[in-house]
Amino acid sequence: MTAEFIADWRTFSTPHAIERAERETDGVALIWSDGRRTRHHRFWLRDNCPCAKCYLALTREQVFEIVDAPQDLDVADAQAKDGGLDVVWSDGHRSRYEAGWLRAHAGDEASRRERGRAREKSVVWGGDHHVQAFACAELMADDAALLAWLSQLRSTGLTLVTVVPVEHEALLQPIGRISHLRETNFGRVFDVKSKPQADSAAYTSVNLPPHTDLPTRELQPGVQFLHCLVNDATGGESVFVDGFAIGEAIRREAPEAFGVLATAPMAFWNRDSRTDYRWSAPILALDAEGEIEEVRFANFLRGPIDAPEDEMGEIYAALRLFQAMTRDARFTIERRMKPGDMWAFDNRRVLHARREFDPESGARHLQGAYVDRDEINSRWRVLARERGAS
Amino acid sequence: MTAEFIADWRTFSTPHAIERAERETDGVALIWSDGRRTRHHRFWLRDNCPCAKCYLALTREQVFEIVDAPQDLDVADAQAKDGGLDVVWSDGHRSRYEAGWLRAHAGDEASRRERGRAREKSVVWGGDHHVQAFACAELMADDAALLAWLSQLRSTGLTLVTVVPVEHEALLQPIGRISHLRETNFGRVFDVKSKPQADSAAYTSVNLPPHTDLPTRELQPGVQFLHCLVNDATGGESVFVDGFAIGEAIRREAPEAFGVLATAPMAFWNRDSRTDYRWSAPILALDAEGEIEEVRFANFLRGPIDAPEDEMGEIYAALRLFQAMTRDARFTIERRMKPGDMWAFDNRRVLHARREFDPESGARHLQGAYVDRDEINSRWRVLARERGAS
Repeated sequence: MTAEFIADWRTFSTPHAIERAERETDGVALIWSDGRRTRHHRFWLRDNCPCAKCYLALTREQVFEIVDAPQDLDVADAQAKDGGLDVVWSDGHRSRYEAGWLRAHAGDEASRRERGRAREKSVVWGGDHHVQAFACAELMADDAALLAWLSQLRSTGLTLVTVVPVEHEALLQPIGRISHLRETNFGRVFDVKSKPQADSAAYTSVNLPPHTDLPTRELQPGVQFLHCLVNDATGGESVFVDGFAIGEAIRREAPEAFGVLATAPMAFWNRDSRTDYRWSAPILALDAEGEIEEVRFANFLRGPIDAPEDEMGEIYAALRLFQAMTRDARFTIERRMKPGDMWAFDNRRVLHARREFDPESGARHLQGAYVDRDEINSRWRVLARERGAS
Repeated sequence: MTAEFIADWRTFSTPHAIERAERETDGVALIWSDGRRTRHHRFWLRDNCPCAKCYLALTREQVFEIVDAPQDLDVADAQAKDGGLDVVWSDGHRSRYEAGWLRAHAGDEASRRERGRAREKSVVWGGDHHVQAFACAELMADDAALLAWLSQLRSTGLTLVTVVPVEHEALLQPIGRISHLRETNFGRVFDVKSKPQADSAAYTSVNLPPHTDLPTRELQPGVQFLHCLVNDATGGESVFVDGFAIGEAIRREAPEAFGVLATAPMAFWNRDSRTDYRWSAPILALDAEGEIEEVRFANFLRGPIDAPEDEMGEIYAALRLFQAMTRDARFTIERRMKPGDMWAFDNRRVLHARREFDPESGARHLQGAYVDRDEINSRWRVLARERGAS
């Protein structure tokens, strides 16, 4: 039986060997050279058969559908052989699985715990944070630099790109190294400057308190790029705060408030003559393991809180605490942009703010664009895969 | 005190009058002419003050931040007056709220239940469904027709647009009446035809089983538009099935399987030389009220299920049941497109399939594009608002 494994671009290796395979009522158990015992359900094994009948070689996509397996499908034979597992099925189909792949996808508690530990963790930061800078020319020319930039974005959520050409839409040069854009009703690229008929506080000169962009959307834009073309006005400094750091501090210091922020929906909407976007969700979104995966907040886009009367007191206590934290010097960093600087930050994690500026004192012009987390992660995975690191 | 209400574009009316306002420990209680008693927390009231000091008139966005209210902020005076509520605060600020707005946003149980009932419900459908058709020319010329189209999309998730010009990218004409596009790595507009170097099963001639597009993304594209330019090949019929109808049938007929489908994460990923998208989520996503809000499924994009060994049996039982339902004549409708037809369907609800076709028998060319639910809903709300219906 030859292995024609076309179900994945990645390869999987393991230092451990399959010592033997044992048939069980509903599948196969494998006993490994390190003593681990992994159990594989018959439908799971059949579903993951990587052969050229089950997968379309051209697209590497599965054509077999598990619903087409007979209900009583059984393992007729299972043998550990040549660094893998050979299975003969009761309906005559034959499958082969490599040991590395089986070990990497096993469902026993120890294997799942190992995968959990291998998952990258966010690095949270406070007011003393040093933002890592990347030279635009290097990102354009060097895949290793590009990978380092995206890795830093994924771990800390905030980076600076320097010496981006000071030209209209030049921010699309480094962004083009990643992917396409996330377009919004403000355009593919948006101009941040004081406008007479502003449809957003961003397009005035007022202080913008710490916020994420577009919490009014089901999916907030993932990474925001803000490129400085002109910054001659007095004021207008950039402020950043790590929403994950605030969330973790609240979890430690005020657990009840943390519970409210992770469960009480806040209403966010825009107020505009041509659009009417609305979304409600808690300020903190947690993943299945209870880790904070998203922060959603913009005071100027909040709508009336819709909650039972008796919960309003605790909701406002939590909201006021969160807002106070976003201003706290423990967490905030403040920088002034110069032409050619480009911030790139995770808009679903890092809140950004702008000090009020005086539009009479000089010009100020930034350009911005968004790319979603999916695209950042896809590009990062391909770069890492090409280096054998994924 | 004059009311300068700039916090919303909508107006709110109520047939009920505020009979009197009573100060409470933490806010104000209102007694209404129909006997209802609504209680409004002091911070909630202060937060929602719609005056020109608290809101920026130009953008209608809030500049006041509730964290800046003193912790001991109190209601110094509250009076029902001239069809609204006048409040004087302990720090001297004055607020006025219209009765209609207060009634529409009250947090008492009866008011919240009324809002819940007023929320539109999806209309689920089965194999005998008649798909509503809309003439492209009417959508282009008439806002009422556009509103009817979007309303139908929101309630049933599936519509047909007829007599779209048979020209390259002509689908952008009716889409342009809604909003910008959701771009993906397949482009802003994608061409569906058999390609020699296909990077997706969609671009081959094989049978595509019922699926949602791009379950590999955190946010699956909302509405998919598929416009037929040429359809001379044998085969290739379009099949649709309402995922909400399947989900509700499973909830009734196999509640344990429903529980699994709503909680067990499925892995979806693409397999491509230049991208590496992955996302894991249950096949059915439920909202806070337990209503199905999303279906996520494409057999050809599934990765290995990552679950504890002991749960695999029930997960595969639920998955196989779901797959079987997507093929069941109870639920499926099948149609053949002709040039000028354009399907518009909710990709996060309605699974679509394509029968195998014979590329030797004739040409087949569709063009597709996506618009997210946020944009559909925003446009619908503005159209409804302009008609005073929202």
